[in-house]
Amino acid sequence: MSAEGKGTAPSTRRGFLAGTAGLMAVAGSGLGGSAIASSNGSQRPAKREIEPFWGDHQGGIVTPMQRHSYFAAFDLTAGKREEVATLLRQWTAAAARMADANTAEPLGQDPAVPAADTGEALDLSPARLTVTIGFGAGLFVKDGQDRYGLGARRPEALVDLPRFTGDQLVEAHSGGDLSVQACADDPQIAFHAVRQLARLAYGAAQIRWAQTGFLPNFAGKETPRNLMGFKDGTNNPSAADPQAMKEVVWVGEEGPDWMRGGSYVVVRRIRIALEHWDRMKVDFQEQTVGRRKYSGAPLGAKAEFDPVDLDKTDAEGNPVIAENAHIRLAAAAQNGGARLLRRGYSYNDGVNFTTERWPPWRQGLEYDAGLFFVCYQRDPRTGFIKVFDRMAKFDTMNQFVTHVGGGLFACPGGAAEGRFIGERLFDSA
Amino acid sequence: MSAEGKGTAPSTRRGFLAGTAGLMAVAGSGLGGSAIASSNGSQRPAKREIEPFWGDHQGGIVTPMQRHSYFAAFDLTAGKREEVATLLRQWTAAAARMADANTAEPLGQDPAVPAADTGEALDLSPARLTVTIGFGAGLFVKDGQDRYGLGARRPEALVDLPRFTGDQLVEAHSGGDLSVQACADDPQIAFHAVRQLARLAYGAAQIRWAQTGFLPNFAGKETPRNLMGFKDGTNNPSAADPQAMKEVVWVGEEGPDWMRGGSYVVVRRIRIALEHWDRMKVDFQEQTVGRRKYSGAPLGAKAEFDPVDLDKTDAEGNPVIAENAHIRLAAAAQNGGARLLRRGYSYNDGVNFTTERWPPWRQGLEYDAGLFFVCYQRDPRTGFIKVFDRMAKFDTMNQFVTHVGGGLFACPGGAAEGRFIGERLFDSA
Repeated sequence: MSAEGKGTAPSTRRGFLAGTAGLMAVAGSGLGGSAIASSNGSQRPAKREIEPFWGDHQGGIVTPMQRHSYFAAFDLTAGKREEVATLLRQWTAAAARMADANTAEPLGQDPAVPAADTGEALDLSPARLTVTIGFGAGLFVKDGQDRYGLGARRPEALVDLPRFTGDQLVEAHSGGDLSVQACADDPQIAFHAVRQLARLAYGAAQIRWAQTGFLPNFAGKETPRNLMGFKDGTNNPSAADPQAMKEVVWVGEEGPDWMRGGSYVVVRRIRIALEHWDRMKVDFQEQTVGRRKYSGAPLGAKAEFDPVDLDKTDAEGNPVIAENAHIRLAAAAQNGGARLLRRGYSYNDGVNFTTERWPPWRQGLEYDAGLFFVCYQRDPRTGFIKVFDRMAKFDTMNQFVTHVGGGLFACPGGAAEGRFIGERLFDSA
Repeated sequence: MSAEGKGTAPSTRRGFLAGTAGLMAVAGSGLGGSAIASSNGSQRPAKREIEPFWGDHQGGIVTPMQRHSYFAAFDLTAGKREEVATLLRQWTAAAARMADANTAEPLGQDPAVPAADTGEALDLSPARLTVTIGFGAGLFVKDGQDRYGLGARRPEALVDLPRFTGDQLVEAHSGGDLSVQACADDPQIAFHAVRQLARLAYGAAQIRWAQTGFLPNFAGKETPRNLMGFKDGTNNPSAADPQAMKEVVWVGEEGPDWMRGGSYVVVRRIRIALEHWDRMKVDFQEQTVGRRKYSGAPLGAKAEFDPVDLDKTDAEGNPVIAENAHIRLAAAAQNGGARLLRRGYSYNDGVNFTTERWPPWRQGLEYDAGLFFVCYQRDPRTGFIKVFDRMAKFDTMNQFVTHVGGGLFACPGGAAEGRFIGERLFDSA
């Protein structure tokens, strides 16, 4: 679907740069020379800058979180199943190359054709790029049509998400037949990766909606603060614990073959009414969350990682962590043991026109910022849906947050080198 | 306009953390303890993480570019001049504190009042934060009203920008009475800074529009690539050259007293039709820009920093750098010596519904991404307006770029410690 490299062209991003180095030396330009030399093809990026692509699981799920995320949902326009398989084969190959510090496809040197890579990642570190691919319900059935003969293979767990209390999902930020999340420590690398996949998809799929996200530059052992100013993720299961991930995240024998080692991702674009939150007293904020703002300690405890004691009461017999506090409603103990692996990012899309929800009901331009919530689980029916159904009804935080977009996608297991993500779905169809 | 710190509360972001360290030690939580200790109040951030705030010039103009930018334009709602002066005094004090790794205001420990800082920058490095404040025409006259008695002091150079050929400026991304640009190596730090100023402005001003921006993680001596995949900024005057800055950027004796040492900033939200650009042959892209894509060399030269030879012709006598190439039209030699200091960032706001400009005139969701162009100059009439007037008419690149928002703001000179940005305008009024 795009121009192939030709002739003697070096095939990698690094190789290309090495190829130009001679030219630079001839020109004798110190500045130009050093710019190229600093990413000279003979220097592999440091190992810590490369996340493995091939394996039992897709990257970007239990990978230590990178600082930037770019999520895109695609609508399929392909007419035939084989075109979808071809697209996934190309996406897999390109994603693997980019994660390994290469261009999306071998970069030709024929200037008379469009380039096989758009170029903005040249000279850059891969910045721990991961690309995670998911399948929405529309791959299996859309508007009642089984476009690709895959309808019978739709996993039971890939349900249509119910409408939750308070949902204000915007069509332009919801759904999609395919999902791609690129995460990297450099926003340009994440953007570049999605853009290359979009380019490879010409004629087969097009972006439906997209969302950027970021984390602060926190040290690895710290819990980053979200835009509410609270530490977020303290009670997340550890992605570094394979047993916990096996229980919480990875699809096992209960799923179809192509989903084994995969996971279901729920994404939600959650706008936070920061303009209101910022006017609240700190103790009200803490009652809402159920934790201290600055230390991150659960109410009634001393330190961030102290256990959450939901039974503790004050002198009057009232629960120290309120009945409608966020962390109580999210707690596994309150949800039949249901757990999720959260992997969300803050987002900041500027300001929008909104109407306040309470007196004096002002209208004005307010923040279009909040949380791009991302969570992985073995089964959304016993994961996000179970947990969020109660939270949507009772969580005090709902005064400040509105779900305005999102989707549910089945992320297949990982691929062995040379195979492609989702291949077992298409093989068996 | 917001709660003041009370009693014995430590007054700094670092101090606050130091205050909690004892608590953490008592709790004996290794994980929690290390998280706090890593940003312990007794450890000043490294000098390289702090940009000076006070001085002859505002920061964020000749400061080496940080990786992230958050720009916001505000509409003034204050009724009186003194309220505007108070706002600027508060903004200056908060910006200076945040640049120095402190909370926006002293952080109280009274949980029964809203916090004096929203908290998401706690534990974080200031990441070389700069905050640059500018004055739009609306501070002086708006809808024919001289709201603050400053109309007679509007600088001649603070013109109303003309409508340029091809402009498709959207009201929701244009204009504003005040501008704030926060730049930092951490997007959360930049967001935090603007948010604190917005909070301090309650009742006096509100955000009108805002725009995020980013650069790739490039090495200091390299020229970063923009989203077109080209190196961008090669011929920028050096911000490290005081003489060049004096000539190009800083207002001198020709300006009013309060603008001396200041500069005029033009910002333009420039959408790039990447969906088209990516389909173009590399040599067409290079003809459009006037440079080689991969090396950055001007056409007809060898290396990025080789001089741009606009007179060079090929065997048929045609100019090697085309008459309508971007770098020819931007060249000082073609614009009576007019120069600018560009300090722009790429932006990525996802996708929008657009209509293609040429066959087959498809409609669909396309990139809402491009360049948040930012340039500084002594006088926009002999800077941006002079240069861009011709470019808007003739630049081949106009096939791919559309200016969809922006503004012009007068950024006053810097402030001595204890004074505030723009004080001399108000003093003399």
